[in-house]
Amino acid sequence: MVRTVGVDLGGTNVRAALVDPATGSIVGSEVKRPVTDKQPEAVADLVAEVVRAADPKGERSAVGVGFAAMLRGFTGVVVNSPNFGWREVDFRGLLRARLGEQVELYNDLKAIAYGEVRWGGSGEARHVCFVFVGTGVGAGLVVDGRLDFGASHLAGEYGHVKVVPGGRLCGCGQRGCLEAYTSGRNIQLRAVEELRAGATSRAVELAGAVDKVHAGHLDQAAREGDAYATRLWDEVSGHLGVALANLVTTLNPSRLVMGGGVWHGCPELRRRTIDVFHAQANRPSLEGFTLVDSQLGDIAGVLGAATLAGSLS
Amino acid sequence: MVRTVGVDLGGTNVRAALVDPATGSIVGSEVKRPVTDKQPEAVADLVAEVVRAADPKGERSAVGVGFAAMLRGFTGVVVNSPNFGWREVDFRGLLRARLGEQVELYNDLKAIAYGEVRWGGSGEARHVCFVFVGTGVGAGLVVDGRLDFGASHLAGEYGHVKVVPGGRLCGCGQRGCLEAYTSGRNIQLRAVEELRAGATSRAVELAGAVDKVHAGHLDQAAREGDAYATRLWDEVSGHLGVALANLVTTLNPSRLVMGGGVWHGCPELRRRTIDVFHAQANRPSLEGFTLVDSQLGDIAGVLGAATLAGSLS
Repeated sequence: MVRTVGVDLGGTNVRAALVDPATGSIVGSEVKRPVTDKQPEAVADLVAEVVRAADPKGERSAVGVGFAAMLRGFTGVVVNSPNFGWREVDFRGLLRARLGEQVELYNDLKAIAYGEVRWGGSGEARHVCFVFVGTGVGAGLVVDGRLDFGASHLAGEYGHVKVVPGGRLCGCGQRGCLEAYTSGRNIQLRAVEELRAGATSRAVELAGAVDKVHAGHLDQAAREGDAYATRLWDEVSGHLGVALANLVTTLNPSRLVMGGGVWHGCPELRRRTIDVFHAQANRPSLEGFTLVDSQLGDIAGVLGAATLAGSLS
Repeated sequence: MVRTVGVDLGGTNVRAALVDPATGSIVGSEVKRPVTDKQPEAVADLVAEVVRAADPKGERSAVGVGFAAMLRGFTGVVVNSPNFGWREVDFRGLLRARLGEQVELYNDLKAIAYGEVRWGGSGEARHVCFVFVGTGVGAGLVVDGRLDFGASHLAGEYGHVKVVPGGRLCGCGQRGCLEAYTSGRNIQLRAVEELRAGATSRAVELAGAVDKVHAGHLDQAAREGDAYATRLWDEVSGHLGVALANLVTTLNPSRLVMGGGVWHGCPELRRRTIDVFHAQANRPSLEGFTLVDSQLGDIAGVLGAATLAGSLS
């Protein structure tokens, strides 16, 4: 029976498990370790360690690693990973030197998307978009049952569609990206900046201090009618709702799966975004369509990477 | 040897030819007739007539018809065709009653896109987007070598992504669509409206009369430095350039093929749009990427519909 190891490498923790890629079930137990040293060699050592811990008997035929980074083509080279501070690192090469040739590196959101779509209740849907709104923003696109990597592994870089050309600076170096307006990290940066500059909001009380304000406090404040938070949520939900509508208009999925900490943790933002989405999507594209929350939680990336790796050997 | 008939049904003319779908070559001669009566039954009679004229010996195994309409799912029902004034017409049913079961109806831009991608010099590219900017605006998306229809035949309805939520009214009934700002028809409607309301432009002289102003005159006027045309082209190229950038950021094609009368007929608009596109696309997505003009001209739709129909039988 084929077994693969799925790894989800985040900025804080790395998780791994031995998986049956034909059923999406975990064999044995999940392994989780903190990421302390962010140097490429150290991270590669850590990944090798968790892979061996998850698969002590060496049953794996391949390893799939989901990683929060923009990758170049199918070369396994990390163009840019803001979480790790890497640019142009041949991380797949470092992993293969430790674990052999049957190792593939995937963008983390593609791995999560594939896990959610295959094993998270989307059933027989063959056209599914998964959009993640958390620390970062991105998407995974399933077209006719298959994960779309695009020509060079960059399909689904939806956090970098431009919603305000020339607008706020994004971590990618360009301006006006969806992520610059709607990611948890950028919402927090912006709110702290504006609240320090004199704006007032109930969110500061809820957080205890200006510097501690995050999207969750703003959502609570908006629910309580706070003017600053309401104005900010109007803008953020406007950008996100239109962007989701445009994605569905472009790709005509039967299902849009929404995940990420900002999405799940901010019910008021979620409600407003869904309203904008329904008003702005191409109407015929909404027939037979459903928008659902992601179901698998933290294990989606491990299952997705393992399932994708199942097609390597 | 398999032969199929491809039909391109436009608002003015219908074209058809017998095609070898394995090579994209026309067998015999192309047939072209004007569309006079736009009633569904009359149009279906006309299509049956040109199919029989293109294939007098009955060599076809299937017929593919490209048609300027939004279709519902794979049912062949026309939801909406502004050119023909139809809503909710089972046009495929009318065609099958005349030509047998091996008839499929495609959105015209999907047929054109597939013809261009398969037979217009895109060679081995497996991820290609085709965007048409003519009387209307739309796209065809080729993902991993296959035309993406989406869950219900609406993938690529790119004319209806929202670029100015709540903005100008579109023919689809919603507001702020890309098509409402960038199609030849809408550019003309808007310019005539603004020029009648008091705006002045060299384009009126070039056209001979306000009511005759179209995109080509505006492009000529912009090249001559006319202030009205320059301002309008700034806005139109801004919307189109950002929309193209967002499409490439989302789907990561190795090739974007641009077609349609506005694109080919307005070099100044084209130049400005390409500048905006390059500034706004996700930068890593531009590595190994090319933007090219469509090559096949009017025959693309016939070849695309015939090639798509080749997989029916």
